[in-house]
Amino acid sequence: MKLPLGYRYASVYAGIRKKSADDLTLIVSDAAASAAAMFTQNVVRAAPVTLTAEHLRKSKGRARAIIANAGNANCATPTMEQVARATAKATAEILGVPRHQILLSSTGVIGEPLPVEKILAALPSLQQRLSADSFESSARAIMTTDTVSKTAHAAVKTREGEIRIAGMAKGSGMIHPRLATMLAYIMTDARIAPGPLAKMLRSVADETFNRISVDSDTSTNDTVCLLANGQSGVQVRGSNRDAFRAALRTVAEQLAIAIARDGEGARKLLTIDVEGAKGDHDAQQLARAIANSPLVKTALAGADPNWGRILSSAGASGVSFDPRKVDIRLNGFLVCRRGVRADFSEKDVQASMEAKECTLHFRIRGKGKGQARFWTCDMTEDYIRINAEYRT
Amino acid sequence: MKLPLGYRYASVYAGIRKKSADDLTLIVSDAAASAAAMFTQNVVRAAPVTLTAEHLRKSKGRARAIIANAGNANCATPTMEQVARATAKATAEILGVPRHQILLSSTGVIGEPLPVEKILAALPSLQQRLSADSFESSARAIMTTDTVSKTAHAAVKTREGEIRIAGMAKGSGMIHPRLATMLAYIMTDARIAPGPLAKMLRSVADETFNRISVDSDTSTNDTVCLLANGQSGVQVRGSNRDAFRAALRTVAEQLAIAIARDGEGARKLLTIDVEGAKGDHDAQQLARAIANSPLVKTALAGADPNWGRILSSAGASGVSFDPRKVDIRLNGFLVCRRGVRADFSEKDVQASMEAKECTLHFRIRGKGKGQARFWTCDMTEDYIRINAEYRT
Repeated sequence: MKLPLGYRYASVYAGIRKKSADDLTLIVSDAAASAAAMFTQNVVRAAPVTLTAEHLRKSKGRARAIIANAGNANCATPTMEQVARATAKATAEILGVPRHQILLSSTGVIGEPLPVEKILAALPSLQQRLSADSFESSARAIMTTDTVSKTAHAAVKTREGEIRIAGMAKGSGMIHPRLATMLAYIMTDARIAPGPLAKMLRSVADETFNRISVDSDTSTNDTVCLLANGQSGVQVRGSNRDAFRAALRTVAEQLAIAIARDGEGARKLLTIDVEGAKGDHDAQQLARAIANSPLVKTALAGADPNWGRILSSAGASGVSFDPRKVDIRLNGFLVCRRGVRADFSEKDVQASMEAKECTLHFRIRGKGKGQARFWTCDMTEDYIRINAEYRT
Repeated sequence: MKLPLGYRYASVYAGIRKKSADDLTLIVSDAAASAAAMFTQNVVRAAPVTLTAEHLRKSKGRARAIIANAGNANCATPTMEQVARATAKATAEILGVPRHQILLSSTGVIGEPLPVEKILAALPSLQQRLSADSFESSARAIMTTDTVSKTAHAAVKTREGEIRIAGMAKGSGMIHPRLATMLAYIMTDARIAPGPLAKMLRSVADETFNRISVDSDTSTNDTVCLLANGQSGVQVRGSNRDAFRAALRTVAEQLAIAIARDGEGARKLLTIDVEGAKGDHDAQQLARAIANSPLVKTALAGADPNWGRILSSAGASGVSFDPRKVDIRLNGFLVCRRGVRADFSEKDVQASMEAKECTLHFRIRGKGKGQARFWTCDMTEDYIRINAEYRT
């Protein structure tokens, strides 16, 4: 897959994390790009989050570069603001671009001071390494407890030429529908103004990044950035708008699914579809409650077709519904019909649930049109092992 | 500790659960008692819950007996209503009391038909075994994955004589602040009308049973029953009202703490105190968010003084506060001061967190008067093991 035009990437080991693997990433757009971002809704926000929001306001939605470090969240320390500002200033200077056009992210442990001198010392070699080909290695450098790097690509053919989109993300723990310890950067060479870009990002994120759950915790550093540098020469408008949005949604959805699949300790991905709720909002609330239930997630780990737990978690969601109208399917097998056990072979459904990808359909019979899709993962003993040991 | 006057207890193995341990419990009051109950807020409710609510309405808050089975929730099956009604009818007949004065509970697997014939067959021997001394064995018979039985006692000396209170409970999984797979029965020989009794139960439960969390799942069968049969001859009124409420609260709190401590796979009890929030409601919401965070609970399992996760889980609670005003203490050690790391010895705090009882103080500096106490447990690999195997 060809990458969007006009971006360069680099990564380097700055010594922020203990393990000797690249921990500092730089993404540069050759031209000032329209930029949109979404952040965690946690009231405890890391300094790179608040500074990036400030920069985007001051630059009126324009950006030239993203600098991100793994291994330290630069959050809840006395120096976090100084560190973020010094990082932005040095990055702007070395690239020769306005300071407000630098976006920042950090991910890793909370509450330990981020040694800014390590970032400043690594910047020159980071700049030297900038290359259009280093997309994949940059995606690896933002990982923390992720077991695989997460990238996605799409292209849109228009009469004026081709638009390309490429995204990278990291996830793993603290993954919750309302954004998580999740970083995602999506680059495109489309031409589109900051206002419409921000609107499109919000609507796409609401259907993708806001529909995943690993452990219902919400991080202090979550950030999704979308850059559009116009280097394809193709303007997003009229007839190609829907195609561009669809391609963007595909990239965002693939990244979101990759995050859910790679949840800490996870072995299985569960796609949850709710239909027949009174409205989409109710459907989302039901799907979220099922996705967040530790008992549903442990049953999935044990390949246990425990529809009673699914029904019960939906019942505790705060949404009102008649349990006698509920049908539940696991991997296509009808396990619950009108709120009671359906006639199914326990053995067959169990066997199907050994698969790495499982599906859950929760349907309320009647006239309701509300529907929602969510993604989550199973909860295994490894989740506990990772989190009882690792200092996030 | 002496038991309240005028109650008899019995338990028997009716063959509802596989393991050969008593699974059917009967509690009988010699005289019609004032009765109050609270139930799960799950919209999926087991038949014994809806029938008990109906009975209390029809009897105007009077009850003679509680019949409870473990091993099957009598929930989400086509026969659940018939089974509950047949159980109530047969119990009323064998005791010679009005049908509406029978209260029912079931706990165990959801969605499998409860074989009512086993209950009907066991009733005669259950009745024969009724004895004022069988309180402890009845408490054991309502256990499911509980590792210990849970009982609590209190007495109130008044000028008119002594009032006694005794309670039993079961918990284990699906334990959430808004009631859980939790059964609790509290018997007293105080004399008090159904109306004031119900009001007192609600206010006491709000400070006790509604402040515990094991895994944030809410069950379909949760029930708390309070019976007051007046057999002490002491009327609750005026000067002894506060003393009676305090004793009732002590019993409820001891049962609630016992449930949190015995959460599935738990090795540690965590008492969470929040103070300085804008109001008690905000304090409760903060405490609940910390208590429900899997990352806080796994850190506790690993004896990791991870105050960053605590701050972050509070930040995601939906309550607005200034992180720079937050102090956090673990087992008395100040680990976070004004939102950043305090000067503490990691080794000392870790060592203290190996204890079976830990405390967490979350304080917001300022004029806020809101406070709340919550209890939760650590989340260990055993929680996963139990729930990936056991069919609830």
